[in-house]
Amino acid sequence: MLRYLPILEWGRRYDRETLTSDMVAAVIVTIMLIPQSLAYALLAGLPPEMGLYASITPLLAYAVFGTSRTLAVGPVAVVSLMTAAAIGNLGLTDPAAIAQAAIMLALLSGLFLLLMGIFRLGVIANFLSHPVIAGFITASGILIAASQIKHILGIGGGGETLPSILSSLARHLGETNLPTVVIGVATTLFLFAVRQRLKLFLLARGVPAKTADILTKAGPVLAIAASTLAVWALSLDGAGVAIVGTIPQGLPPVTLPPLDPELWLQLAGPAVLISIIGFVESVSVAQTLAAKRRQRILPDQELIGLGAANTAAAFTGGYPVTGGFARSVVNFDAGAATPAAGAFTAVGIAVATLALTPLLFYLPKAVLSATIIVAVLSLVDLSILSRAWRYSFADFLAVAATVVLTLGLGVEIGVSAGVGISVLLFLWRTSRPHIAEVGLVEGTEHFRNILRHKVKTFPEILTIRVDESLYFANTRYLEDYILERVAPAKGLKHVILMCSAVNDIDMSALESLEAIDTRLADMGVALHLSEVKGPVMDKLKRTHFLDMLTGEVFLTQFGAIQALTKTDRQDAA
Amino acid sequence: MLRYLPILEWGRRYDRETLTSDMVAAVIVTIMLIPQSLAYALLAGLPPEMGLYASITPLLAYAVFGTSRTLAVGPVAVVSLMTAAAIGNLGLTDPAAIAQAAIMLALLSGLFLLLMGIFRLGVIANFLSHPVIAGFITASGILIAASQIKHILGIGGGGETLPSILSSLARHLGETNLPTVVIGVATTLFLFAVRQRLKLFLLARGVPAKTADILTKAGPVLAIAASTLAVWALSLDGAGVAIVGTIPQGLPPVTLPPLDPELWLQLAGPAVLISIIGFVESVSVAQTLAAKRRQRILPDQELIGLGAANTAAAFTGGYPVTGGFARSVVNFDAGAATPAAGAFTAVGIAVATLALTPLLFYLPKAVLSATIIVAVLSLVDLSILSRAWRYSFADFLAVAATVVLTLGLGVEIGVSAGVGISVLLFLWRTSRPHIAEVGLVEGTEHFRNILRHKVKTFPEILTIRVDESLYFANTRYLEDYILERVAPAKGLKHVILMCSAVNDIDMSALESLEAIDTRLADMGVALHLSEVKGPVMDKLKRTHFLDMLTGEVFLTQFGAIQALTKTDRQDAA
Repeated sequence: MLRYLPILEWGRRYDRETLTSDMVAAVIVTIMLIPQSLAYALLAGLPPEMGLYASITPLLAYAVFGTSRTLAVGPVAVVSLMTAAAIGNLGLTDPAAIAQAAIMLALLSGLFLLLMGIFRLGVIANFLSHPVIAGFITASGILIAASQIKHILGIGGGGETLPSILSSLARHLGETNLPTVVIGVATTLFLFAVRQRLKLFLLARGVPAKTADILTKAGPVLAIAASTLAVWALSLDGAGVAIVGTIPQGLPPVTLPPLDPELWLQLAGPAVLISIIGFVESVSVAQTLAAKRRQRILPDQELIGLGAANTAAAFTGGYPVTGGFARSVVNFDAGAATPAAGAFTAVGIAVATLALTPLLFYLPKAVLSATIIVAVLSLVDLSILSRAWRYSFADFLAVAATVVLTLGLGVEIGVSAGVGISVLLFLWRTSRPHIAEVGLVEGTEHFRNILRHKVKTFPEILTIRVDESLYFANTRYLEDYILERVAPAKGLKHVILMCSAVNDIDMSALESLEAIDTRLADMGVALHLSEVKGPVMDKLKRTHFLDMLTGEVFLTQFGAIQALTKTDRQDAA
Repeated sequence: MLRYLPILEWGRRYDRETLTSDMVAAVIVTIMLIPQSLAYALLAGLPPEMGLYASITPLLAYAVFGTSRTLAVGPVAVVSLMTAAAIGNLGLTDPAAIAQAAIMLALLSGLFLLLMGIFRLGVIANFLSHPVIAGFITASGILIAASQIKHILGIGGGGETLPSILSSLARHLGETNLPTVVIGVATTLFLFAVRQRLKLFLLARGVPAKTADILTKAGPVLAIAASTLAVWALSLDGAGVAIVGTIPQGLPPVTLPPLDPELWLQLAGPAVLISIIGFVESVSVAQTLAAKRRQRILPDQELIGLGAANTAAAFTGGYPVTGGFARSVVNFDAGAATPAAGAFTAVGIAVATLALTPLLFYLPKAVLSATIIVAVLSLVDLSILSRAWRYSFADFLAVAATVVLTLGLGVEIGVSAGVGISVLLFLWRTSRPHIAEVGLVEGTEHFRNILRHKVKTFPEILTIRVDESLYFANTRYLEDYILERVAPAKGLKHVILMCSAVNDIDMSALESLEAIDTRLADMGVALHLSEVKGPVMDKLKRTHFLDMLTGEVFLTQFGAIQALTKTDRQDAA
């Protein structure tokens, strides 16, 4: 029971002091989350109120089921981009149908996350390698920034890949609206300046570091207030500046995801991708913050927390959510002590939705886009390419493919290809294992690669060390290696397979070893094994292999050499 | 040049003696191949002449490009079944369109095999594990036998999965034709008897083993002659016995595969599966036979040989072909010495197509089905399930899934699922590596699992041996393991990661090691590595990891313990 409801644990010890900390953090995060919610809804191609709705019940659900004390859940940039891509593929034009599709996507993500959590399959996320995630986030940041340029210019257009976004921008460039550009560019520059200078400025004035940090994060709120006032005062909406317009006032509606099996099928794949990406991002933020306070995150319970949050989003007019990096850091720095801070944030957003939305009528979309651009450009870090290049070609290939395919063919193909390529490269590498011929380091019992060390070898004995588990993909390689090495070797009597790095032998490999044994026997050569690990030996004992083997199994390689050289001396005598 | 044209090598040393051997073998294989070609065309759902055409030019092409001296190429059971399934999915009814699709399938298979050969990608076949192949062949044998029952009963129907075949048989059972059943059942029993008894009978009469073997394989020819005569003499075709009917007389036509991009796309997937299954089967037959005569097979050149054979089939009215097991053994036993035997067989089939097809007019289809059933039931070996069960659960799961899905959902899904499941199980296993805590075996320099051996441990030092390469899928597991183990351990100062079985550290794992190092440092614990392999160390040296590491890298685990216990003693003093 405690496993599934972490609230029972922290709730019991909740006191006035914790309450104060959580309330302060909630106020600060609420102020930050209002513009973000509107902006990410815009990025997802949804009406602004859906961003607000996605910041209310999901936070309450996560507060009950999540294990992170400080994670702030809600709409985030990458997931909003993926939502836009998933819905874009459906080719819908009716705004009501688009909203329904977003709600369905949240429901499917929620159910998938819950299922993964119940079956404790958080391990699935491990198949997204670090370089692939880094490459994907960087490419998504570039795509998101590019997709917002049209709002800064006040022009139409679209596109879900970098080439299509750029060519669409080029086609629509003639429609550029000057007042929009002025507002958009000024806001972007202002936000960059705030981000890069304000903190230093405040620190120099003696403002404490955390306060300076939080004030810096409030830059977008200032930009929104100023630009909204400017548009209202100068009637710039009449001059072609696109504004947010009417946002329905009131609490989130109760929504029922549509019963449309075809839509379910079309959105199932994207929902799985969104869930996994969202989960990986969220858990890594949560773990980083938890480690700073010596707290623990339970990844399988996080799946349940995020699953509940997305399911809640689906039933209250929201769209897919996950834990956000920037807002979680603000929440943490502002002193949030328990998930109750998230619940209070939800109340704050609800109040804003009830009372403040009329004030946002004249808010220019270009300002929201500016906040998105400034936020996502901090995600872009192309140095992952050079770091991967220096480290290993396989990692570089996976990152480069992820970046290029995400930019060129979109987020879904990009991340799927990244995962697929990582797995294929791993299989490829293990299918061509490192095989070393080893000899005795004289005066010791150690055996080392004859190419790297000065070692003693024996003319009648060949010792081969395979640095990989033996499994279906590399058995043929091993067969070929041994048979090609042995065939021309005159006078050879024994082949020892040194298994110190063989962590498993599967059934294909077992059959290959039998084939190698038989073919070596045809050549008058015996096959021996040495240093077989306990679990592998346990498996081999359940087969006839050890009875059929022409040679023996030796506990140590040194023992093998001692026994075989002694026997040969006896044979000669 | 020699690599791509093995004929230049053996052709140069061709002499009269070799010619005689090859001619004898060719005559015997021709007699065996005529009924097989007709039967497998029937199985593939194609007109009988396509089976004959597929046994002419493909054999010539293989003789030029193949590396096996004794492989007999042509239509085979499993590939014919897969052809039927691939074409069945298209929902065609016009016989001309069906033939065109088969020709296209041969072309696509041929091109795919040639590409794989040119890029030396024969290694792809390694991803079909032995148990998956065994399970797939067994399930295919059952499907093929079941699919032929309708011809034995003389009824209609269809189906590509076991349930659909059986329910179709049940629906059509009322149409059963008595003369057909008599012929079909009698032939089946006769062929089983020949297969199981004739050889023993002949051996008892002093007939040499090889001759007895070949005569046994000629059983189907006798059955065909007798049943054709019977149908003709008794006019059984008038009594409802389905006969082969008119087979066009003449050499294979020159066919051009249709230029239909949609058809290409639909058949590309099946063509890849057919190519890989055909290649794996063919190479394993070729290697088995080559090993008996100490000859060599070059798998990458075999791809070219089979690719040429299939391309030839596509341009001369054939359908996908590969090396067959039974006929290759006959070819081998009959003394075939070079691929010229295959070319002579092609001439034999061509002569038969020119002259003998009128004689086959009254051949009952039930007899062809009987030869198929008897041939494929020898492929069925369900013991693979129990062997895999005894050996390992992962292998059993892969075989069982392959068998069940092939029978239940058809050949394409079955074999794809088998490959997919093998790969996933391998990833799953390596994502949860065996991790052992090790201690010193006193009086030696060896370290062993503290759970399996009586060893000495040190209160301030924890040594962990990971029996797997560190890569993206298992890094989180390792992180969790180490942090959970270290957190409650009071007084711990050093963690040594013993890397004797770590064959690679990818970039994700490197980042995880950095994270582990940082978090251990927060707890006042240093991270050390020992027994890092040469290639892994080379990679680590290209990063900042070794500079950042709180601890040291030791060449041997014994050296690590010596150094760390000494330092601690000095600290204490």
